[in-house]
Amino acid sequence: MRIKKKSGEIVQFDTEKLIRSLIASGATKETANHIIDDIKLQLYDGISSQKVFRLAYLKLKNYSKGHAARYNLKNGIMALGPAGFYFEKFIARIFELQGYQTKTNVEVEGACISHELDVVVKKNNHVAMVECKFHGSKEVKTDVKVPMYILSRFNDLKSVNHSFFSEDEKITKCWIVTNNRFTSEAIKFGECSGLNLLSWDYPMGNGLKELVTQFKVYPITCLTTLTIAEKEILLLQEILTVYNLVHHENGFAKLKLSQSRIKKVLNECQQLLS
Amino acid sequence: MRIKKKSGEIVQFDTEKLIRSLIASGATKETANHIIDDIKLQLYDGISSQKVFRLAYLKLKNYSKGHAARYNLKNGIMALGPAGFYFEKFIARIFELQGYQTKTNVEVEGACISHELDVVVKKNNHVAMVECKFHGSKEVKTDVKVPMYILSRFNDLKSVNHSFFSEDEKITKCWIVTNNRFTSEAIKFGECSGLNLLSWDYPMGNGLKELVTQFKVYPITCLTTLTIAEKEILLLQEILTVYNLVHHENGFAKLKLSQSRIKKVLNECQQLLS
Repeated sequence: MRIKKKSGEIVQFDTEKLIRSLIASGATKETANHIIDDIKLQLYDGISSQKVFRLAYLKLKNYSKGHAARYNLKNGIMALGPAGFYFEKFIARIFELQGYQTKTNVEVEGACISHELDVVVKKNNHVAMVECKFHGSKEVKTDVKVPMYILSRFNDLKSVNHSFFSEDEKITKCWIVTNNRFTSEAIKFGECSGLNLLSWDYPMGNGLKELVTQFKVYPITCLTTLTIAEKEILLLQEILTVYNLVHHENGFAKLKLSQSRIKKVLNECQQLLS
Repeated sequence: MRIKKKSGEIVQFDTEKLIRSLIASGATKETANHIIDDIKLQLYDGISSQKVFRLAYLKLKNYSKGHAARYNLKNGIMALGPAGFYFEKFIARIFELQGYQTKTNVEVEGACISHELDVVVKKNNHVAMVECKFHGSKEVKTDVKVPMYILSRFNDLKSVNHSFFSEDEKITKCWIVTNNRFTSEAIKFGECSGLNLLSWDYPMGNGLKELVTQFKVYPITCLTTLTIAEKEILLLQEILTVYNLVHHENGFAKLKLSQSRIKKVLNECQQLLS
């Protein structure tokens, strides 16, 4: 059987690959095999990869909501949009978990012009600027013009003294983070120019998806037990992550959920954080 | 009486300004005054500046086709689109008239990645890259990201040896040319970074409109005596300028015009070139 990838490419359906991705989200090998058996009858030649993903996701939800949330991570991060605002906060959170001080949305004067920085981070007296490129569609890649203009921004800021966290700070590093992918040209230029790139799966084995799993920094948008409207209410209170929701004093207050629903949500949260 | 500018701004109608722009395209003061008298009755409070321009243009055409073509220059350059290809050739022509050697559409290796340059020019052993930003709409301005990413391209190419016209050439200058305008931020950044900017009216008194008039390098698209289809046929033969049309051996051959129409077209051409 063949499936159609997002790129339009037709490839042989790879059962092992689907099993691996289900296991990566926490399912046991047994559950993964069950899911494959369950969806087998619904597959057909030429089915889109998104549809296969969706079928497996719905089945996984029946087995474990926490695993389904993890499996749905990429969509969850995309649901932080449509504006880039929450994504920037989310990225700042990832830096904080790595021991950085952070500030978001900073206006700053360069040698030539003023700039708005999405995130500024500091650790061990090193200050870095972090530019976030949020895309609301899976198809959009961040192309080479982005690292090219951001390199100029970095160069314009390098020589100037700032005071983000204390006096006389110099920006010495620059990150570009996207929820999607970079084009190969963008990676080539960025790496060659000394920029640090972070995307969904770059650097390999250390991309956004691995960082999220490593630091258990799941966006609340990937929860399967809350509605879109409920997630929006949480985001407006800047409760961005599952950890925040669980540890926030009044996290649930504005949602007005029944006790049994709160229990279900907390259960899913614990599955993700455990 | 008030008019509405493209920006949406409402301003007092300035008769003197309209007279000046008509005179700038070659009309006598007397003709300009006649035109104002002619269109006066058609004006109304809140009329758009484009509509005023259009009314004046139609009247000017009755007085002198050559002057109308000059008055219509900005639209003529825009009609070189929708792709940027002919605009790049047109800009190359302007550099040639200033004594440069030129090449368009050049692929070249930088220190990090390869780039495609719109135009490369050379004079007195100095080689410059020229990036052309063509916009098909009057409202679009070239924003600060453009000089920012082009500066990175320039820096990526600077250190490398090239051979555009002869051996061992280094790119030492960079131009950015647009048929519209730059944002003030783009000008600030570009100038501060040592880039050369050229737009419709920048540098003041030495912009694209002045260069076109100074070198009489009128695009055939601003002629009022040819149809859009006829202009397209000429462009396909790379007859881009009025000068080219008049001096090209078989310029008119493919148009299949009657002798009386050829006479009219040549008449307008002569008015522009004289």
